[in-house]
Amino acid sequence: MEKLTVVKIGGKVIDSPNQLAHILADFSSIEGHKVLVHGGGSLASSFMKKMGIAPKMVDGRRITDEASLDVVIMIYAGLINKQIVAALQANQCNAIGLSGADGNSIKAKKREGATVDFGFVGDIEEVNVNLLTNLVRKGFSPVFSAITHDNTGQLLNTNADTIAAEVAKAMSTSFDVSLIMTFEQKGVLSDPSDPESLIETISYEAFKGYQQREIITDGMIPKLDNGFDALKAGVKKVIITSYNNLADLSQKHTELYLS
Amino acid sequence: MEKLTVVKIGGKVIDSPNQLAHILADFSSIEGHKVLVHGGGSLASSFMKKMGIAPKMVDGRRITDEASLDVVIMIYAGLINKQIVAALQANQCNAIGLSGADGNSIKAKKREGATVDFGFVGDIEEVNVNLLTNLVRKGFSPVFSAITHDNTGQLLNTNADTIAAEVAKAMSTSFDVSLIMTFEQKGVLSDPSDPESLIETISYEAFKGYQQREIITDGMIPKLDNGFDALKAGVKKVIITSYNNLADLSQKHTELYLS
Repeated sequence: MEKLTVVKIGGKVIDSPNQLAHILADFSSIEGHKVLVHGGGSLASSFMKKMGIAPKMVDGRRITDEASLDVVIMIYAGLINKQIVAALQANQCNAIGLSGADGNSIKAKKREGATVDFGFVGDIEEVNVNLLTNLVRKGFSPVFSAITHDNTGQLLNTNADTIAAEVAKAMSTSFDVSLIMTFEQKGVLSDPSDPESLIETISYEAFKGYQQREIITDGMIPKLDNGFDALKAGVKKVIITSYNNLADLSQKHTELYLS
Repeated sequence: MEKLTVVKIGGKVIDSPNQLAHILADFSSIEGHKVLVHGGGSLASSFMKKMGIAPKMVDGRRITDEASLDVVIMIYAGLINKQIVAALQANQCNAIGLSGADGNSIKAKKREGATVDFGFVGDIEEVNVNLLTNLVRKGFSPVFSAITHDNTGQLLNTNADTIAAEVAKAMSTSFDVSLIMTFEQKGVLSDPSDPESLIETISYEAFKGYQQREIITDGMIPKLDNGFDALKAGVKKVIITSYNNLADLSQKHTELYLS
């Protein structure tokens, strides 16, 4: 099977133009088919502040009212997506920026009935494998912002880790997919205050144990849930690592295993 | 030759959600291959005001400094483009939003040496006919915002009329192209204060005469220049009309002729 690498970048790197440029050059050097999924960094929040819209967060996830939705569309699907695409093009990577609405690439459903009302937040229903397969086979690298749509005209804010995992899962029927979720650390740490306390491999059972013992907590839990879901659905390899390791994945990182 | 319709929408309609929805439904009903190019309306200017950035205009064109460029990318390539794409998808039109950076669809060059420094404004060098041909033949309708790139990582603000004309021109080597530039009026008026003073056909010679006698003035001049350039380059039909006529182009409008 042809290989496909799905890379998620997010966090502070999005806010740092120099570091981002370096990482996009590294992404461009990845051989074969590749998809990039990016978060929004802190720009949307600081923008909302300037606009007098107070950002609301619950459990590390943004509550998206109509005014915030407009801002995240602008920042994620507009400014950040296009700056990333332009930088990749300058690196001879034939990037094409997509929200879920573009080519109906990711259809989602507004989240209803949860204990918390997340507002205009979408849970993914379908990734357009046909479109993505056509694009990557023609040499394009799709670049996803964290915006989806419901196919009735409503745009929705969707967690970027989830988009990366769902794209990886959907594409794993036709490709040998590696999912690489990057962030500030070398990987999952047993002690968040010690960057050297890297856990190099985590089985699903061990993950549950780490969760019980509160060694893996907070935002890392949905990230790993996404990663294990991807493995269960047929994704070949799930790596959690620093965005500084993109050019050389032989550097120390965390790899997830089902058993 | 296969037909391709390139439609430009802009002006006040972009600011009016209800009217825009109606027009996008009309665009969706156009048969065959189609491309939409949209301007930004007044949202970018009002946004800049909120952000404390004073919008600068010379001869009806925006001066784009770095802060304004970020805002036009957000608003044009982000909010407006994605809302339009989502609305078209809801109308069963398989829209895919593009800035010039996406798939290197439109390469431009920063305008230099003009008597006025327009800032980050791009003059189009090349439209990616290959990409657009592939997309329309696969049933996609590309939706362009007025943002291009220079292929070295710099995004550029580019006049939407010019994008529409350049896309029409480039595609006319492989398609029988109609270029439809829409705005508030039924077409070109001999008396701007009288909406009934429609000039139904304008030859290039007549255009020069109208210009000399100052019957056609201001922003209408570059629009018609773009239109005649398109005809000279092989575009089959150039129509200037109201966006309310998109569903029925037999309604009164202005058509340009070379002679």
